[in-house]
Amino acid sequence: MKIILVGASGTIGKAVHKELSVRHEVITAGRSTGDLRIDITDKETIKTAFASVGNFDALVSTTGSVHFGEFMEMNEEEYMVGIRNKLMGQVNLVLIGRDYITPEGSFTLSTGILNRDPIRLGSSAAMVNGAIDSFVKAAAMEMPNRVRINSVSPTVITEAMDSYGPYFRGYAPVDADLAALAYSKSVEGIQTGQTYIVD
Amino acid sequence: MKIILVGASGTIGKAVHKELSVRHEVITAGRSTGDLRIDITDKETIKTAFASVGNFDALVSTTGSVHFGEFMEMNEEEYMVGIRNKLMGQVNLVLIGRDYITPEGSFTLSTGILNRDPIRLGSSAAMVNGAIDSFVKAAAMEMPNRVRINSVSPTVITEAMDSYGPYFRGYAPVDADLAALAYSKSVEGIQTGQTYIVD
Repeated sequence: MKIILVGASGTIGKAVHKELSVRHEVITAGRSTGDLRIDITDKETIKTAFASVGNFDALVSTTGSVHFGEFMEMNEEEYMVGIRNKLMGQVNLVLIGRDYITPEGSFTLSTGILNRDPIRLGSSAAMVNGAIDSFVKAAAMEMPNRVRINSVSPTVITEAMDSYGPYFRGYAPVDADLAALAYSKSVEGIQTGQTYIVD
Repeated sequence: MKIILVGASGTIGKAVHKELSVRHEVITAGRSTGDLRIDITDKETIKTAFASVGNFDALVSTTGSVHFGEFMEMNEEEYMVGIRNKLMGQVNLVLIGRDYITPEGSFTLSTGILNRDPIRLGSSAAMVNGAIDSFVKAAAMEMPNRVRINSVSPTVITEAMDSYGPYFRGYAPVDADLAALAYSKSVEGIQTGQTYIVD
């Protein structure tokens, strides 16, 4: 398969690249590194990158950021950061990717544990993850040509505990390699409309 | 209790008004009818309305619209309609309401069945409902003064079947009065971070 991996330089992205590249052609994408320059908040970069590749069999996104902040101090604009980036950035990969995905191809987006198991500062992350998991479930039913769409929702990743640990006390981390398997299942399996929980 | 009911003229809003007004002071709000003029997509109308009321014990929203369309034809702007209206419109009621809600008061938002049980044309509704249900779950944990927040997620309402019926074939509708009980439970109960499913 020809697979575009957006966010390939991240902790999970690197593990997904390792998992998939032994069997497939993985085209990496990122804001500043990789084969393609994609900033998911800038649709033109998505369009340009996809046009340069042509048709592809899978799009995997392991990217997307949100604002973390105390709920009582969060304002509308801070919620919109996550909506524009992690939510609509990933959704735009799908909307634009509709023109390039091959029959029986797949889209795999990234969410995370925070809508299932909230932490302090995480109300925007929860909102965005819930939006994506729900979007995937509904959009899957309307995909033509047996194109599939799933999300992967991991807990905190072992390799990221140095920075995230203080926010995730009591959460058992999972290794990035384990999370990568869920992306492999989404890309190489037959299921659609699923959220693969990794925790 | 002093309760602000936004969307009071809608099918569910009218039933909620009937349920709550026998025991409480219900201040109705809507774009063109009610005691207060609130357009949830216009923050200034929310601020003006809340300032005119002063502190209140509960905010109930039974309003919010999204764009319904074929997934393969939906564009970013059409997804943004629901994000600005049903999602961030209701979230802004909460964010602005933080300054007026009394201790042990509550916020109750409206979602719906479509993130649990998708229909054709409903990918934006699913996204927005999932976002709100998840936001409520996380924000509840950070509310001060035992302020609570829940969402109510009804299936299609009997009284709306004339217009919605064709989109909900096979769905058993529930009467608006039954849905209204879930709002009563949210306002008059003790739970928080819940999504009350009515189907």
